Amino acid sequence: ETEAQAKAGGGLKVKTDDVSIKVGGRLMYDIDWFDDEAFTGNTGSGSDSELRRARIYVSGEFGDWKAKVQGDFKDDGSTKLGDAYLQYNGWDDLALTLGKHKEPFGLEEQTSSKDITAIERTMIINALAPGKNYGASLGSASNEFTWQFGVFDHGDEGGNIATGITGRMTFAPIITDDEVLHLGAGFRQSRLAGNVYKDGDQRLEVHTADEKVGSGTIMGESITAYNLELAYAAGPFHMQAEYFEGEVDGGGWTADTDIDGYYAQFGYVLTGESRPYSKGKFKRVTPKGSAGAWEVFGRLSHYAPGSDEADAYTLGLNYYANKAVRVGINYVNGDMNEGGVNKDGNALALRFQYVF
Amino acid sequence: ETEAQAKAGGGLKVKTDDVSIKVGGRLMYDIDWFDDEAFTGNTGSGSDSELRRARIYVSGEFGDWKAKVQGDFKDDGSTKLGDAYLQYNGWDDLALTLGKHKEPFGLEEQTSSKDITAIERTMIINALAPGKNYGASLGSASNEFTWQFGVFDHGDEGGNIATGITGRMTFAPIITDDEVLHLGAGFRQSRLAGNVYKDGDQRLEVHTADEKVGSGTIMGESITAYNLELAYAAGPFHMQAEYFEGEVDGGGWTADTDIDGYYAQFGYVLTGESRPYSKGKFKRVTPKGSAGAWEVFGRLSHYAPGSDEADAYTLGLNYYANKAVRVGINYVNGDMNEGGVNKDGNALALRFQYVF
Amino acid sequence: ETEAQAKAGGGLKVKTDDVSIKVGGRLMYDIDWFDDEAFTGNTGSGSDSELRRARIYVSGEFGDWKAKVQGDFKDDGSTKLGDAYLQYNGWDDLALTLGKHKEPFGLEEQTSSKDITAIERTMIINALAPGKNYGASLGSASNEFTWQFGVFDHGDEGGNIATGITGRMTFAPIITDDEVLHLGAGFRQSRLAGNVYKDGDQRLEVHTADEKVGSGTIMGESITAYNLELAYAAGPFHMQAEYFEGEVDGGGWTADTDIDGYYAQFGYVLTGESRPYSKGKFKRVTPKGSAGAWEVFGRLSHYAPGSDEADAYTLGLNYYANKAVRVGINYVNGDMNEGGVNKDGNALALRFQYVF
Repeated sequence: ETEAQAKAGGGLKVKTDDVSIKVGGRLMYDIDWFDDEAFTGNTGSGSDSELRRARIYVSGEFGDWKAKVQGDFKDDGSTKLGDAYLQYNGWDDLALTLGKHKEPFGLEEQTSSKDITAIERTMIINALAPGKNYGASLGSASNEFTWQFGVFDHGDEGGNIATGITGRMTFAPIITDDEVLHLGAGFRQSRLAGNVYKDGDQRLEVHTADEKVGSGTIMGESITAYNLELAYAAGPFHMQAEYFEGEVDGGGWTADTDIDGYYAQFGYVLTGESRPYSKGKFKRVTPKGSAGAWEVFGRLSHYAPGSDEADAYTLGLNYYANKAVRVGINYVNGDMNEGGVNKDGNALALRFQYVF
Repeated sequence: ETEAQAKAGGGLKVKTDDVSIKVGGRLMYDIDWFDDEAFTGNTGSGSDSELRRARIYVSGEFGDWKAKVQGDFKDDGSTKLGDAYLQYNGWDDLALTLGKHKEPFGLEEQTSSKDITAIERTMIINALAPGKNYGASLGSASNEFTWQFGVFDHGDEGGNIATGITGRMTFAPIITDDEVLHLGAGFRQSRLAGNVYKDGDQRLEVHTADEKVGSGTIMGESITAYNLELAYAAGPFHMQAEYFEGEVDGGGWTADTDIDGYYAQFGYVLTGESRPYSKGKFKRVTPKGSAGAWEVFGRLSHYAPGSDEADAYTLGLNYYANKAVRVGINYVNGDMNEGGVNKDGNALALRFQYVF
Repeated sequence: ETEAQAKAGGGLKVKTDDVSIKVGGRLMYDIDWFDDEAFTGNTGSGSDSELRRARIYVSGEFGDWKAKVQGDFKDDGSTKLGDAYLQYNGWDDLALTLGKHKEPFGLEEQTSSKDITAIERTMIINALAPGKNYGASLGSASNEFTWQFGVFDHGDEGGNIATGITGRMTFAPIITDDEVLHLGAGFRQSRLAGNVYKDGDQRLEVHTADEKVGSGTIMGESITAYNLELAYAAGPFHMQAEYFEGEVDGGGWTADTDIDGYYAQFGYVLTGESRPYSKGKFKRVTPKGSAGAWEVFGRLSHYAPGSDEADAYTLGLNYYANKAVRVGINYVNGDMNEGGVNKDGNALALRFQYVF
C-alpha cells in the first residue's frame, strides 16, 4: 500500500511496503549587527545579512539500505553538497555509512544545525570538529549507548588520500521521560593535506563578523584532538558542556600547536516543554500548544588556539512557532587576545529558520 | 487527512490539515539569432542558445508561516538561489516576508518570468528594478488594492549593510470577470556598495546578445527611482505600460546620472482566452481547449541611461500548449545611440518553457 | 484520480489523469587505489575518493509534453545542470527533444551511468561521444528499431553557435524474452569552438587517476566520427562491443589528427538474471530474489588519439542489492604509449550507488 505524508521538519514522503522516498530542506536567514574590534577588527560597527543555510534534499530507503543527496545552495557561486551518503543497516544494530557525512566528534557538532540552541556553534567545535567529509563509518545507537567510528578523506597528500580517523562514544546513565544525563567522549586524528590546518581561525560566534581569532594557517603534519561531553536535562531545564584538547603536530620540522577550549550552555523552556534527546544527540524544542514555545539560554565559550585566546558570552531567546519555524535572537559579548593585543566587542544576531 | 496533488505550474504537493510541502520548478530553453551592431557590436550576425532558467524549489506551509527554497542552476558554475524566504501571514491581511525575495518595484518585474508576455523584460525594468535581494518586506493584497514596502541588503558599504528601501502600491478601479484596469506606482532608493551602480548597462531585450547600451559602471553614492504603472485588459485584449525616472546620485564628488525609460505593450489572445490578473500582477494565459491558446503582442520600449539612448520594438507570438508549456517567438528591432554613435539591428528569439 | 507512487530508481511521483510530476536522483560514491605511471604519472601509488555523481531532478508530463530539470551537485563549486530539456511526443512515434540532453552517439554513452556494467565508460567513448549539450533532436524508438538525429550547440565560434550534428540508428534483429541481438551505427560532426578539441586527453578508466593519455589540446576546425555497435545477450550472458573512427580536421592550417578505438565487454549474471534491453539501450540488472544479484564481467578497451595509444583491461564484480543499490568493484590493468614513452599500472576501484 502506498502512503503520502507531509511533516514539518520531516519532509514530503511517499512510501510503499518496500520503498520510501522523501524530499525536504531547510532555510536559515540571519541578520547580524556588531560593534568594535572583536567583531569588526576596528573601532567601528558592522552589519550584514545572509542566507546561512538553504538546502534541498532527496532521501530514500529500500530494504536494508538508505541514502540521501542534499544540495547546499549559496549565492556566492559555491553551491555544493551537504549530506551525500548511502547507509547499510542490515547487520543487526550496526549502521555502515558511506559517502559524505558528518564525522563523529563533538556533541554540538552531531546536533543538527536545525537543532542547536544558539544561532552558531562554539569556536572550539568549529575549530576541531571535522564536519562533513567523504568516508566510511560504522556505528550503533540505542537510547542508552551509542558509538560511531569512521575513516575519512581529508584531501590530497602526495597523490594519496590524507586519511583521518574519528570516533565517539556516548552513554546516558539516566534516561527517563523527564530527565536525561548524557556522558560522551570523542577522538580524532588526521593527516593534514598541504601540511596546513585551516580551521584554527575562528569568528567569535557571529558568522558574518569580519574579525577572527587565531592564525589562518597552522603548519603541521597531523592533528589530534580529544573531547569530553556532559549534558543534563530535567523538564524544561537543559545544559550541556564540552571540553576539548587538540594539537597540530609539527612533525619535527615545525613547532607543535595546541588548540584547546570548552563551553557550557544552560537553557530553560519558559513554556514548559523539554529539549528532546535521542541516541546521543539533542533535538530542538517542539511546542505543545498552538502559541509556540519560548526558550532562554546562556552560553560561555573559551577558545585558545596556540598562544591566542578568546571568550564569547551569549544570551539568547528562541521562539519555536511550530515544528517548522524557529526565530532566535542572540546577544554575544566577545573578547580576544591575539598576538598580545586585546580586542572586545558586542553583537546582536537574529535568525529566522524554516525546516521543510 | 493527507492529500497528494500534482498541478502543472503548481508542483507536486502533499498536504495534511496543518502542513503542506510542495516541490516544483521551471525550465526555459532559448535560441537566439541576431544581426548588426545593436546586437553583435559589429556588422556581422550572431547566434546563441542557453538554458535561460532551470530551477527546482521546495516550499512549505505550516500554520501562519510559509517558506520556499529555490535552486537556480547554471551551467557556468554560478548555480545559486532564486527565492529563499520565510513568510508570516498571522497578522490579518498582512504578509511579512524575510529572506531573499523580489523587491516590490515595477509591474513587469513583479510578474513572474513564467508569466511575462515577451521572452525578456524591458531594458528600463532590468536597469532599475532591484530584483531579488536579502531583506524584509511587509505588504497586503486584496483584489482591488495592494501595497508592499521593504528594506533590503544591497551589499557591503564600509563593513555595514548598504541599505535599500523599496515600495509599491497598486489599485484596480475596474475589476470584473471580463475587464481590469490597473494603476500602480513605485519607489526605490538604495545606497550603492562600492560607489558603483552596475545595472545601467543593458542588452536590447535579447539575452544572449553581445552588445549593450549604457555605461557598465555608473559612479555614485545612491540610486533613487520612481515609476508609474498602467494596465488594462478586456476579454482577449490586454495592454500594460510603465514609466520610470531614476537617478544615480553622485554625492557631490561626481556627477549625477539620470536613468529614464518607459515601455508599452499590447496583446491579443487569438483563441479568446483572457490574461489573468490577480492582486497587482498578471499571470500567463491558460488555454481553455485542448488545442492550446495563441497570443500575439507588440511592445515598444525606450531606455535612456545618462546621455545614451536605445529603443527596442518587439513583435511576438505565444503558443500556450497547456498550463505547463509555452512556446514563444519574438522578433526584435533595436537601435541605440551610445557615445554619439548610432547602432541598429534585428533579432529573432525562440523560447521553450515548461513549468512543473 | 490522483495517485502517489514511490519506486526505487523511479523516484517519487504524483500523477493525475493529465499531469504527473516526479522527483528523484542518484548518488555514486567511489574510492580508488592505483599504482604506477599509467595512473599516477610516476612510479608511486595513489588513492582518492569522490562523489562521482550526486543529482536531484524534477520531471513532469502533461499531455504530449514532458520535461526534466536535473541538478548535478559538485563539492568543488562547479554545480551545474545534468538533463534540462522539454520533449514533445505529439507526432505519432516521434519524439522532439529541446534543451540540454545527451547527443545520440555510442551505445555505452546512451546507456545511463546508473546502468553501465563497469564503473567508468571506456576511453574512446569519453573521447568521442559529445555527451549532454544544448540542442534539438528528433527520434523514434520501437523495440526492434530506433533512430535519433540532432543539432547541438558546441560553444561560440566568432559570435555564432559552433554547430554539431549527431545521429544514431539501432536495429535488433533478434529480440525475445531470452535473447537479444543489437546492431547500431552512429555519426557525429561538429565545429570546434576556439579551434581546439579538448576530449582527446583521457584517463585509463579510473576517474580519480592523475595521469592521462593523449594531448590535451588537439588543434583543428571540426571533428567527425563514426561508430559501429554490436551487442548480444542470452539469459544471464551479455556482451557488447563498439568500434570508433574519428578525425579532428586541421582545416588546412594544421595537421589532421585521428582518434580511433574500440572496446569489447562480456558479462555473466551469476544469480541467473538477464541484463534488460529496451529501445536501443541496456539497463542494469534487477535482482529477482531478496538476496540480490551478482554479476561478473570483463572488458578490453583500446584507444589511439593521434600517435599515442592506450589499452585498459577491466575485471569486475557487481552486487545489485535491489533496484536502488549497486556495489561494484573493478580491477583495471592499463598501459599506454605517450610520445614514445611506455607507462603501465594497476588500479582498484570501488563504487557505491543508490538510485532514488
